[in-house]
Amino acid sequence: MTLEEKVVKTLNEKGLVLATAESCTGGLIAKRITDVSGSSGMFNCGIVSYSNDIKEKVLGVKHKTLETFGAVSEQTVREMVKGVLKISEADIAVAVSGIAGPNSDNTQKPVGLIYLAVSDKKDIKVVKLNNDFKDDIRNQNRINASDKALEMILQMVGE
Amino acid sequence: MTLEEKVVKTLNEKGLVLATAESCTGGLIAKRITDVSGSSGMFNCGIVSYSNDIKEKVLGVKHKTLETFGAVSEQTVREMVKGVLKISEADIAVAVSGIAGPNSDNTQKPVGLIYLAVSDKKDIKVVKLNNDFKDDIRNQNRINASDKALEMILQMVGE
Repeated sequence: MTLEEKVVKTLNEKGLVLATAESCTGGLIAKRITDVSGSSGMFNCGIVSYSNDIKEKVLGVKHKTLETFGAVSEQTVREMVKGVLKISEADIAVAVSGIAGPNSDNTQKPVGLIYLAVSDKKDIKVVKLNNDFKDDIRNQNRINASDKALEMILQMVGE
Repeated sequence: MTLEEKVVKTLNEKGLVLATAESCTGGLIAKRITDVSGSSGMFNCGIVSYSNDIKEKVLGVKHKTLETFGAVSEQTVREMVKGVLKISEADIAVAVSGIAGPNSDNTQKPVGLIYLAVSDKKDIKVVKLNNDFKDDIRNQNRINASDKALEMILQMVGE
């Protein structure tokens, strides 16, 4: 069973609904979830907030947060996950923001720096990745971040 | 050059910003666009409205439209594309709703029925697919619909 199949099966069994807020993974997590037949039972909403504007306007990330800490920060993924939980009314959500590469953004942050947040409304857990892939960097960073996101969802629901 | 690379290159050259609203493709179009380095220059927002609730609440599709014509209809994709253009303030957007399979939804509509809409604010073009894949049905329907969406974007911008 793939990781995404396990997520779909587990959340369907538990009667939990998932939502996603993605920046650097750009829809890859939602795509992997919806690859699985039966995902409509446990997935209702994915927001790909690729620009800062959409992080603010759709997810409600504060302008001040983006200005002070940047889009790739613990503070931003915390607000992204809270935002998508609110919009979707889902039971659990995951948010990702990072620098997939091959080039950095206009900050001094390194390629491979990725923050993930998962929340079930009561708790939030944040993980920071410092990937250092040598080849196929963008693709590897995105796959790795989506793997990690799916694992964090399973951990949060106690699997 | 892949289809998604051509879309990223063309829209970056023309200075146009893209947004997506996906149901049955579940983030695949956004994922394919953001696979490409440089996509942050031309892509700002993707909404995966997998439930009807999210189609209404985030994209502004009318309850009456979903009730009368269903989620998989020309009327719904028209409202989805208008909704995501409004939220994102992008120059061009694409919306997809269909039955990827292998099972149908709770309507009499056949697996492989997919509606796509592309709009540049002035014009809207809608295409209806009636796919009849025999194997790997869900995957083939999703790939085919995302290919068609990317082709429709290129056509709309005159490529």
